[in-house]
Amino acid sequence: MAVERRAESGVNANRAFVLRPTGEFFYEERPPPILRSSRDVLVRIMVTGLCGSDIHYWQHGRIGEYTVEAPIILGHESAGIVEACGPDVKSLTIGDRVALEPGISCNTCETCRSGRYNLCESMQFAATPPYDGTLTTLYRLPEECCFKLPPHTSLQEGALVEPLSIAVHCCKLAGNIQGKSMVVFGAGPIGLLCCAVARAFGASTVVNADIVESRLAFARKFGASTTYQMELQSPELNAEMMLARSGLITGADIIVDATGAESCITCGVCALKRGGVFIQAGLGSPRITFPIGQICDKEATLKGSFRYGPGDYQLAIELLQSGRISLKNLITHEFEFSEAGKAFVNVSKRQGIKTIIYGPDVDKMLAERTMRDINGPVYSRF
Amino acid sequence: MAVERRAESGVNANRAFVLRPTGEFFYEERPPPILRSSRDVLVRIMVTGLCGSDIHYWQHGRIGEYTVEAPIILGHESAGIVEACGPDVKSLTIGDRVALEPGISCNTCETCRSGRYNLCESMQFAATPPYDGTLTTLYRLPEECCFKLPPHTSLQEGALVEPLSIAVHCCKLAGNIQGKSMVVFGAGPIGLLCCAVARAFGASTVVNADIVESRLAFARKFGASTTYQMELQSPELNAEMMLARSGLITGADIIVDATGAESCITCGVCALKRGGVFIQAGLGSPRITFPIGQICDKEATLKGSFRYGPGDYQLAIELLQSGRISLKNLITHEFEFSEAGKAFVNVSKRQGIKTIIYGPDVDKMLAERTMRDINGPVYSRF
Amino acid sequence: MAVERRAESGVNANRAFVLRPTGEFFYEERPPPILRSSRDVLVRIMVTGLCGSDIHYWQHGRIGEYTVEAPIILGHESAGIVEACGPDVKSLTIGDRVALEPGISCNTCETCRSGRYNLCESMQFAATPPYDGTLTTLYRLPEECCFKLPPHTSLQEGALVEPLSIAVHCCKLAGNIQGKSMVVFGAGPIGLLCCAVARAFGASTVVNADIVESRLAFARKFGASTTYQMELQSPELNAEMMLARSGLITGADIIVDATGAESCITCGVCALKRGGVFIQAGLGSPRITFPIGQICDKEATLKGSFRYGPGDYQLAIELLQSGRISLKNLITHEFEFSEAGKAFVNVSKRQGIKTIIYGPDVDKMLAERTMRDINGPVYSRF
Amino acid sequence: MAVERRAESGVNANRAFVLRPTGEFFYEERPPPILRSSRDVLVRIMVTGLCGSDIHYWQHGRIGEYTVEAPIILGHESAGIVEACGPDVKSLTIGDRVALEPGISCNTCETCRSGRYNLCESMQFAATPPYDGTLTTLYRLPEECCFKLPPHTSLQEGALVEPLSIAVHCCKLAGNIQGKSMVVFGAGPIGLLCCAVARAFGASTVVNADIVESRLAFARKFGASTTYQMELQSPELNAEMMLARSGLITGADIIVDATGAESCITCGVCALKRGGVFIQAGLGSPRITFPIGQICDKEATLKGSFRYGPGDYQLAIELLQSGRISLKNLITHEFEFSEAGKAFVNVSKRQGIKTIIYGPDVDKMLAERTMRDINGPVYSRF
Repeated sequence: MAVERRAESGVNANRAFVLRPTGEFFYEERPPPILRSSRDVLVRIMVTGLCGSDIHYWQHGRIGEYTVEAPIILGHESAGIVEACGPDVKSLTIGDRVALEPGISCNTCETCRSGRYNLCESMQFAATPPYDGTLTTLYRLPEECCFKLPPHTSLQEGALVEPLSIAVHCCKLAGNIQGKSMVVFGAGPIGLLCCAVARAFGASTVVNADIVESRLAFARKFGASTTYQMELQSPELNAEMMLARSGLITGADIIVDATGAESCITCGVCALKRGGVFIQAGLGSPRITFPIGQICDKEATLKGSFRYGPGDYQLAIELLQSGRISLKNLITHEFEFSEAGKAFVNVSKRQGIKTIIYGPDVDKMLAERTMRDINGPVYSRF
Repeated sequence: MAVERRAESGVNANRAFVLRPTGEFFYEERPPPILRSSRDVLVRIMVTGLCGSDIHYWQHGRIGEYTVEAPIILGHESAGIVEACGPDVKSLTIGDRVALEPGISCNTCETCRSGRYNLCESMQFAATPPYDGTLTTLYRLPEECCFKLPPHTSLQEGALVEPLSIAVHCCKLAGNIQGKSMVVFGAGPIGLLCCAVARAFGASTVVNADIVESRLAFARKFGASTTYQMELQSPELNAEMMLARSGLITGADIIVDATGAESCITCGVCALKRGGVFIQAGLGSPRITFPIGQICDKEATLKGSFRYGPGDYQLAIELLQSGRISLKNLITHEFEFSEAGKAFVNVSKRQGIKTIIYGPDVDKMLAERTMRDINGPVYSRF
Repeated sequence: MAVERRAESGVNANRAFVLRPTGEFFYEERPPPILRSSRDVLVRIMVTGLCGSDIHYWQHGRIGEYTVEAPIILGHESAGIVEACGPDVKSLTIGDRVALEPGISCNTCETCRSGRYNLCESMQFAATPPYDGTLTTLYRLPEECCFKLPPHTSLQEGALVEPLSIAVHCCKLAGNIQGKSMVVFGAGPIGLLCCAVARAFGASTVVNADIVESRLAFARKFGASTTYQMELQSPELNAEMMLARSGLITGADIIVDATGAESCITCGVCALKRGGVFIQAGLGSPRITFPIGQICDKEATLKGSFRYGPGDYQLAIELLQSGRISLKNLITHEFEFSEAGKAFVNVSKRQGIKTIIYGPDVDKMLAERTMRDINGPVYSRF
Repeated sequence: MAVERRAESGVNANRAFVLRPTGEFFYEERPPPILRSSRDVLVRIMVTGLCGSDIHYWQHGRIGEYTVEAPIILGHESAGIVEACGPDVKSLTIGDRVALEPGISCNTCETCRSGRYNLCESMQFAATPPYDGTLTTLYRLPEECCFKLPPHTSLQEGALVEPLSIAVHCCKLAGNIQGKSMVVFGAGPIGLLCCAVARAFGASTVVNADIVESRLAFARKFGASTTYQMELQSPELNAEMMLARSGLITGADIIVDATGAESCITCGVCALKRGGVFIQAGLGSPRITFPIGQICDKEATLKGSFRYGPGDYQLAIELLQSGRISLKNLITHEFEFSEAGKAFVNVSKRQGIKTIIYGPDVDKMLAERTMRDINGPVYSRF
């Protein structure tokens, strides 16, 4: 009486790419995860995107209070294929292609029950110590963290549903965006996706500001109606110049900072319209010099944005499903699992926009076929 | 054909207490204001409270971009008696005792029409250059800025409806306060009133934090369920100690800063619960070192609070009407109009909580009688 | 290796008061419930209040689609004493006096995770077929459904936290109530509690409307600032008369209907101010004649209120804790468990306001002592 | 000293199309309106769309309490060209092409100041007795009611900014629509525009339901992703069938009824998901049989939508400006001013979707040229 559904598969290995507290990576064979609850799902990881936090743990061994004290598997932007389901899993079946929401909340505390599970004190988040991430063959998650991909969406795009959900969360925090003007600081993956989501959400003007012109060129393809190169010394003058060039005389309705840089945050507060909303999406220095007086004078609202919450993954996938957003052009570099270390080096050198690593069982060409011909025989392997 | 209703009165003088750009005060006889619109109201000023901004204009000649470039009448926390009404005034009649909302918004711009008139770009605010304030005999305002006082509320309390409305505005910005915990920094008039309003709005715990123990004693009478003397050097340690003593282990739901001091703001952000709301009510240094990282990690919201908006005066008066808040104990010093300069000195020395100045036509004893026996013959004089 | 904490107790019996589909009650000894999950709690039921729905299931065998098809235990307004805790229960310990939230939601569906668990499709609600209720000795619930009572609150009051939470939920749905005017239709338990909560939430005027003068007398003690006896035939005239007598010339800001009666709902819509909010709290006829035109003309909002959701129990208990609401006077009739049937008859005859039934192990005098002297030796028995 | 700017124009006539209380139309020369306030604007009416309410006043002499007791000019969906401006008008100049918001609110009452001016008790709304409408040569409005059209938007489209704003208002009342499912009842102008706005606002599924297949065909071109012909007798069965065909198994997130018909409203409530929002956009019978029980069980929200409020016209124009909505295909019939009566007959026979009437000074071909070549010499005439 087998209550657990599991794909017939010869592939039982569970290879992991592990970071030592001392900063070296190594490969290790780990015992494959087992389903602990009747609603657990086992996913064969196909694609994982690298995020700035992965690089930071590698290079600095910590982020804030979270310290790498034992070997840890990094990676949390992933998509894969359902390998096994607990007996109470209803929405998924073996072979489903899914994007993973990499945080497991307790679902029973007051915070979770009130609709803000991203703030759960008991959150177990992939690749945040002490919890392992997804740079591995198999990964276990509860059903509510697995989201089926639309047929025409590739697994590569599926891995980027995670950063897309971050952008969705930021833009939802900004309230009703329809017909509003927005400035987004930073043209990295989150900044670019915030531009794209803002346009999809109906912003009339989306200005992207960055210091690197080549990134701004990218932004213009990704939803920004205008770009501004942060070229002046003074944040106030940058704000003035940026608003003038964008035709936003009385300021922008909404600012999203995806840099964490003091100069951008100051420029953003200066560029904000009276009564405007400022979303802090990026983590930088934990303390900055901040123009709080303007927050008062403008009766502005500053909101921190932390990961994603109820409905964000669903909406991110809806944006892909409806074609309002495409993630394909975001991926500039891809690496085999056996070369994962090179991927980390690549990101640390700020090459391109988004770097992905294929899962241990996937060679790149296979995945491309997966992407193009999702109903083909290639699936028999999983 | 007399379209303007005006009280029969022998008192036609309009005496003003004026500040020179060079910082000296002088008394001057001004022509009495005339009703310009059919909805204008002329009010005989009976009581004016002094506010920190009045002192600041006197001592520094400016606040931010607002500079005293010509002689100006200060004062904007006032109550008085209706002296004359334009023909289209419907809600008021001569002799009505009113609290004054001292800002005249345009009412037609997009900001005003969308319900945020306090952010109107064309706002004409009393005692903010170049607009004269209320330390004068007669003052003109449109009908929507005059609020009838409840019968049992004195004109002295009426003058303090202005700071009470500031506290109401702050607490409304914090959202639903019922059953929530709040820390208020500062035990000056605004801080104390925020404590009182928070309790009236159903906060379960209200902590007041200040550096002066005598002010904290005042706070305990004014709605604070606990007080904390900011005695430690480190804002982080102050936050920890304060929370421990107040039984707020996971942090406070809401912080209101009524000091503008960097040490308080930092302490407040540290003391904030995940998902909490921080209201910045006080103006201090326009730039501070600010723990923005915590805003992100906690997904907190920081809102500037600017004056008061729709419904705030009405609600402030309702709080007086229902007896849920009493303002009597807030007034610690009172001065005749002829000694207005002494009142400024008194406030500049941080004496007591709230200092009021009686109107030119009022001697103090008369006003006291007014307060106690509002239907008595004393009114025949106005 | 005992992972389950359980009170040392000689009382292992689990007596239940059961309803047959044919409408007769009988007593039955049931096996005591066991803890199924590590977060489960076993509660010894001390007091259960009767609700209209209990009576309805007895008399009609169904409510809407929910049909009594097998023997069922009724009762869902309960308080009791913690008898045993699973090993992962953190907030409770054996002997704690708790109010029970009688609905177990799945906590993992999109509805639950978005903060509206009361709408969960998988809800298991006590005394709603096929789920048994609380008229029994022992009852099992997950930790998140057990709320510790404040020391000075009796178990009798604790049982009424359930209807109080319904009133809290209604009033929260109405938005910011501070300084607003409200009319509540119906002076049964829910209507009365809505009056009390509205006052605690800062409503300036609370009118209670009912057809029975003796109930209105009760309402005047329970938060209503005015009462109105629905004496006229026409709902429109009733609305006009009620508003005139209550001094609400332009209508009420908020209406709560706790009757479900067409005449009250129509009267309420007529009495609503432009832009007002109407909360439908009571279930009556599933279809009524409804003045929808006024909903449009007034741009009014009608919200159904269904049970209670995030934070409602916590806030209800806070209202008891702070003394802003007292439930003592609501209980007009009390019955021993051995006379539970008489309690149902009593409610069906519309006697008094709230009828409670003591748990099988409790005789009434004991419970009274419990109420008065909660730290006394009486507790050794449980 | 000419404070009033006025176009040099030989056309001083002010021809009006007037309805008698007895139901006949006649043409009349009226004195041209003069600017009464310094912020008034005089507009030469170029295009007016007919609305159901215009027809209703003609055929029944009243709508609700509003009765045609004296001759009245109908028409309120208009666009025109600025003819003169008061001296304080800042955002407009003579020759500007504008859409008219036909309601003048007082802007000073509590309702207006709180951001709900559409509910102003003193509203003066064009073509609602006793206020004249826009089927005339010249019309006076305050500056805040005149909205400049984007360069590529024709005056014909400009006239339809009014119904578009109604749809915008409905959809804004529904809250965040991104990724939500919506059913719109009715494929008349408002229903169709609600479909289009819902799609522009990011709805993932928009079902249009009507009884006439030819109208449904129109809806499919106007934003509806699915259509459903209301063919069954029972509203419940219609709801079931409609949801099944649209793939909305658990119901629709949002319902908009633009019919006012009882059968549609009942069907809509049945089709609503738990926790859903129902917007009542259309006026029909003032009283209907209504399934209120489902509103409770689903904890649904029903909102009446009344005209348009803050930001609606701006957002409607933004939708045109950005090309997210085009109004061109909505106009199916057009009439010269001299044949205005025929236009009324046409609409009363339910021909096509939207019927427009050109202003007295405009012949149709001229207007077409205006539409195509807005900077051409054709403007010299006005």
